[in-house]
Amino acid sequence: MARIVVVTPNPAIDVTYTVAAQSIGETHRVETVEQRPGGKGVNVARVLALLGHEPVALLPLGGAAGSWMSDAIARLGLDLIAFPIAGETRTTVAVVDPEHHPTLFAEAGPELSPDEVAALRERIRAACVDAELLVVSGSLPPGVSADEVGGWVAAAHSEGALALVDAGGRALRAAAVAGADILKPNEAELLEATGAADVASGIAALVELGANTVVVSRGANGLVAVDPTGARFEVAAIPRVDGNPTGAGDAATAGVASAFLDGLAMPDLLRRAAALGAAAVLRPVAGEIDLDAYRRFVSTDHGASQ
Amino acid sequence: MARIVVVTPNPAIDVTYTVAAQSIGETHRVETVEQRPGGKGVNVARVLALLGHEPVALLPLGGAAGSWMSDAIARLGLDLIAFPIAGETRTTVAVVDPEHHPTLFAEAGPELSPDEVAALRERIRAACVDAELLVVSGSLPPGVSADEVGGWVAAAHSEGALALVDAGGRALRAAAVAGADILKPNEAELLEATGAADVASGIAALVELGANTVVVSRGANGLVAVDPTGARFEVAAIPRVDGNPTGAGDAATAGVASAFLDGLAMPDLLRRAAALGAAAVLRPVAGEIDLDAYRRFVSTDHGASQ
Repeated sequence: MARIVVVTPNPAIDVTYTVAAQSIGETHRVETVEQRPGGKGVNVARVLALLGHEPVALLPLGGAAGSWMSDAIARLGLDLIAFPIAGETRTTVAVVDPEHHPTLFAEAGPELSPDEVAALRERIRAACVDAELLVVSGSLPPGVSADEVGGWVAAAHSEGALALVDAGGRALRAAAVAGADILKPNEAELLEATGAADVASGIAALVELGANTVVVSRGANGLVAVDPTGARFEVAAIPRVDGNPTGAGDAATAGVASAFLDGLAMPDLLRRAAALGAAAVLRPVAGEIDLDAYRRFVSTDHGASQ
Repeated sequence: MARIVVVTPNPAIDVTYTVAAQSIGETHRVETVEQRPGGKGVNVARVLALLGHEPVALLPLGGAAGSWMSDAIARLGLDLIAFPIAGETRTTVAVVDPEHHPTLFAEAGPELSPDEVAALRERIRAACVDAELLVVSGSLPPGVSADEVGGWVAAAHSEGALALVDAGGRALRAAAVAGADILKPNEAELLEATGAADVASGIAALVELGANTVVVSRGANGLVAVDPTGARFEVAAIPRVDGNPTGAGDAATAGVASAFLDGLAMPDLLRRAAALGAAAVLRPVAGEIDLDAYRRFVSTDHGASQ
């Protein structure tokens, strides 16, 4: 199977605190603590591994938190390229009580120095030597400009690897300008990055910038794609799937990458992405999928249309 | 100077998040992250070092968080005995905005196994071989019974060291039963542990159990002590000191330990404790004191009385 390099530019330890009730300005006894390696690229790599691909997760990691991440990713059985940085890997804290949506506290992450940014691009290039595909998924840490994502796409291309970018904002536009082979934003990211009023105009804006294939995940509204010929494809979401949507977009990204490498036609690619998104919703934890459900979903025609 | 072993049974990484505003169920961008080694015993050891004593901080530490604590304590210049445990050292998160008191999330801490509990007592005993004083300060982790604190006091005594316990609840009572040389609860801990209605009855209850000297810190109301002869001493707090009271009780504990080892008479011991508590209030961070202010406070008679 093809080797895939999956970059998580700004990984985080995802900590979940369970409390009996929340009250601002008060002291809370934390009843349970869960801690897992987080970051969209980490989720993508996990799903790719479950699909039988050989992903290698490439992450800037630093400090004691970075060591923990490194160990935790090894325990998941994922290949890891730990890119050492001076700063401390960030944490995100989610506080969960029986009444509210989780309260999230997201750290910005460690700032990379200019030397680290340059060395990271070179490390990504070197990792692409034996790879067929570079996947970049997630937000950027302080110190890394959006344009740098274009540099990563160019680095992949210079080694003969394809590039898929799942990002928002200026990073998405920079990836388009650099000619990324696939862009895979979600709908909100697409509209925000392009300033477009609807998905079709947003995709057109990215194509205008230089994008090739664009795949947009739309949650319960399925996926939309435009290929380099300008043909438009659409697939509905798998109906009646209830659960935790966190990580569904990352599973869909893994599906797009996987189908792209397997040479599937666009309707089949979208079906795989939709089935994986739904199979991720069935699992309480981001980065996991219900494999049996995935196989069931993907073998049923839910009406991809051109 | 005398060697002092300071045990923090359940240390924590103290993380402070600054946010623009807090809202339950929402996502918060964390603007600044501060991370410091926490735990009452760590604060006590830092103040003892500032006073010129030779404290060694003894902490159960585990996991990546334990490694971070170990490095951070070394950076403070403190001698450290890291007692290795299988669990992960806990974190406490304080969320600060411009409007509210900090919102605190306190993890319970890693559970120590029975083998670890036995080995910890033995490690404390061994550390006391060359020590004059054992200080136990702070709450207990899961798996460590309150009675174990009595075992630590006995371990110190078996090596000829004295024992000072700054704790609450059943641990305070167990330390009294074991004949700890000094108990140093704050007022709330004393009343809660003994069920007494006032400080005098609370102290009497501890003496009844077997306590020797009892020193009670009362925040803005100063300190009260009873020595083994039953004599009662009191000192007012240093007036007109505004700042951060977190850590003031720990600085007072360090003052009690320091004065006890220096052989000061009880009124001078209380004056030192009060001056250190006030000097800690002047610093924004627990574990630090304003040394100049301390010298000024301790040289002024604020009216200790018998």
